[in-house]
Amino acid sequence: MKMNRHYDELKASYLFVEINHKIAAFQETHPDQEIIRLGIGDVTQPLAKCVVEAMHAAVDEMGTKAGFHGYGPEQGYGFLKDAIQGYYAGRGTKIESDEIFISDGAKSDLANVLGLFDTDNTVLVPDPVYPTYVDDNVTDGRKIVYAKTSQENGFLAMPDESVKADIIYICSPNNPTGAAYTREQLAQWVAYAKANNAIILYDAAYECFVSDEHLARSIFEVEGARECAIEICSFSKIAGFTGTRCGYTVVPRELERDGMSLNKLWLRRQTTKFNGVPYIVQRGAAAVFTESGMKEIQANLDYYRQNAKVLADMLDECGVWYCGGKNSPYIWLRCPGEMKSWEFFDWLLENCGVVGTPGVGFGECGEGYFRLTAFGDAEKTKVAAARIKAAIQALNK
Amino acid sequence: MKMNRHYDELKASYLFVEINHKIAAFQETHPDQEIIRLGIGDVTQPLAKCVVEAMHAAVDEMGTKAGFHGYGPEQGYGFLKDAIQGYYAGRGTKIESDEIFISDGAKSDLANVLGLFDTDNTVLVPDPVYPTYVDDNVTDGRKIVYAKTSQENGFLAMPDESVKADIIYICSPNNPTGAAYTREQLAQWVAYAKANNAIILYDAAYECFVSDEHLARSIFEVEGARECAIEICSFSKIAGFTGTRCGYTVVPRELERDGMSLNKLWLRRQTTKFNGVPYIVQRGAAAVFTESGMKEIQANLDYYRQNAKVLADMLDECGVWYCGGKNSPYIWLRCPGEMKSWEFFDWLLENCGVVGTPGVGFGECGEGYFRLTAFGDAEKTKVAAARIKAAIQALNK
Repeated sequence: MKMNRHYDELKASYLFVEINHKIAAFQETHPDQEIIRLGIGDVTQPLAKCVVEAMHAAVDEMGTKAGFHGYGPEQGYGFLKDAIQGYYAGRGTKIESDEIFISDGAKSDLANVLGLFDTDNTVLVPDPVYPTYVDDNVTDGRKIVYAKTSQENGFLAMPDESVKADIIYICSPNNPTGAAYTREQLAQWVAYAKANNAIILYDAAYECFVSDEHLARSIFEVEGARECAIEICSFSKIAGFTGTRCGYTVVPRELERDGMSLNKLWLRRQTTKFNGVPYIVQRGAAAVFTESGMKEIQANLDYYRQNAKVLADMLDECGVWYCGGKNSPYIWLRCPGEMKSWEFFDWLLENCGVVGTPGVGFGECGEGYFRLTAFGDAEKTKVAAARIKAAIQALNK
Repeated sequence: MKMNRHYDELKASYLFVEINHKIAAFQETHPDQEIIRLGIGDVTQPLAKCVVEAMHAAVDEMGTKAGFHGYGPEQGYGFLKDAIQGYYAGRGTKIESDEIFISDGAKSDLANVLGLFDTDNTVLVPDPVYPTYVDDNVTDGRKIVYAKTSQENGFLAMPDESVKADIIYICSPNNPTGAAYTREQLAQWVAYAKANNAIILYDAAYECFVSDEHLARSIFEVEGARECAIEICSFSKIAGFTGTRCGYTVVPRELERDGMSLNKLWLRRQTTKFNGVPYIVQRGAAAVFTESGMKEIQANLDYYRQNAKVLADMLDECGVWYCGGKNSPYIWLRCPGEMKSWEFFDWLLENCGVVGTPGVGFGECGEGYFRLTAFGDAEKTKVAAARIKAAIQALNK
């Protein structure tokens, strides 16, 4: 029996362990201080009324012999795939229903899709980025190269012809930086992928926060992307489904490598190794795309957008550099006073009772930067912003 | 870009395609004949009242800010793990809460758990068996050897010391044969696994149908299994969750290979590549284990058990050999008149308007055998039994 020894190569993920350890220590010495958490990437607003109603109706169906649903299609019900197709069509992006595969979330598909590729491929991952991209490939034993980013390129990596990669991760709007690509920038990545016979794994989990019309919400808004990209998306942020679990992956029919159709391969993978998403959850997800559903979820998104604006305005007033916050729930700021990421974490906790996430936790290029999120409570976010402003102003004096 | 070429080695799964093709052709020539389907492995009874109520309550919670649940623990909520622990403890099997990992179903975990093992391992798969075990390993490129079964050994493979395997699949009660192991038989497999440093993947999806107390419902009823087995189970059959999607996998703390703890590896795998099961679904699953929940689901199981008895009694009356049916929803019969599996399929459709599944579709050793399932409607199952009895009696004249 030989184990998969690549698991030995995973770095222990101390980031959130260390954060919780520091919070606990702080609370012990400051029992009366209210701590405001702006570190989490999880939503806090309840599910929209339309979703709740649709799920109640589906639960009732499942309790009757006539309305009961057993095994569904592994790739998702037609009613949900059609609704997603309509969502794309509404912004002028044409995808076919059989190019859409319903999943239990982006995280699963981001890991599982790698099974279609040989382990002898080189993977290009931006730095900083969602750490899972790296871990998913380390456990498979693929070679990883990093696309370094910095304040100079707005934390948006662009293709480097001297680097050869077979699988390219793009997350736009990015987690953790909030930076988002324009269509023109993505077109350069599509050109690079085609020239290198590479495949782009496009993580669009935060597309719903894009309101600037120059920014892409789908890689399929770019010509040629259908021949080189897979798009992975989720209901986690658009509809607050982090605990309800539903997402989707778009694999275009045109996408072929080595004479193999990736759409057909993914269908075979999913029908073999997956049994679909709960009927009840798919009914809830479909409700998001009705006219009233869309209005309701926009109200939730606006709530988070307003939080982002509160934080962004405060940073503007303090003269602190940041990106994100406008088309993203994440604000990525340069630590004031030349502080390093963890130094600023301690300073913020000590001086403001506010918790965020050290940028270096997302990659070396994140050192000296810090992530705040807009997913908190509105009132608390305002209190946090006021505290941070006062503390930075005192620091700058 | 190199694709995973092992997908080329998968056999196309024509079984159900061919069945549907034959049914369509029959319906065209016999438009007035009612067809009764006893081929499916999917449940048909609605969700129990306790499950429906628990899910309604959870949906309501998710619609309020105070009751909202975002990301949950990837390995499942404590309330459900504790309920499962109690379910095992109720039959005298002790497992710890942190040995239980909630999943979206057995199919996903059966595939994903293979990622912990090197591809350079030999896999032992019974013949006949659930075809997914084979496909999951073909796509990873593992060598597969088969444990042949037959009427002589009651379609229960026993260890063969001349065969070396690293990963051993056991499905008991078995799909498709319905045959189930006694504890003494499983003890021989545990001894074999320990002697060969192998790991048993024990698929217990049908354990809820076991009522004979000499048969095992969990491999952990066998001493030593904690050092060599992983158990994969599901709510699909016990609570009709085929469309609701919930299961669990038990990885004992003692299980180690190559100096690696499989419990820790699986935790790392799940936290990296999975985001847990919907809160609503976990609440529904937990309701199954309440006192009233257990009564309600037993009523559903009794419904299927009665169907199995109707079919088994009929085969007894006709003098047809079969196994299963008593501790399993599957009845595995020897095709009358020395017919081959597909021959009997055609004969059954033509003479009775009944659809089943040709045994050869589950492996070479299934040739000449046939699977009927107890998941159909009770009245229709009785009609089918009467038709089959009359046709076999006519055949035997």
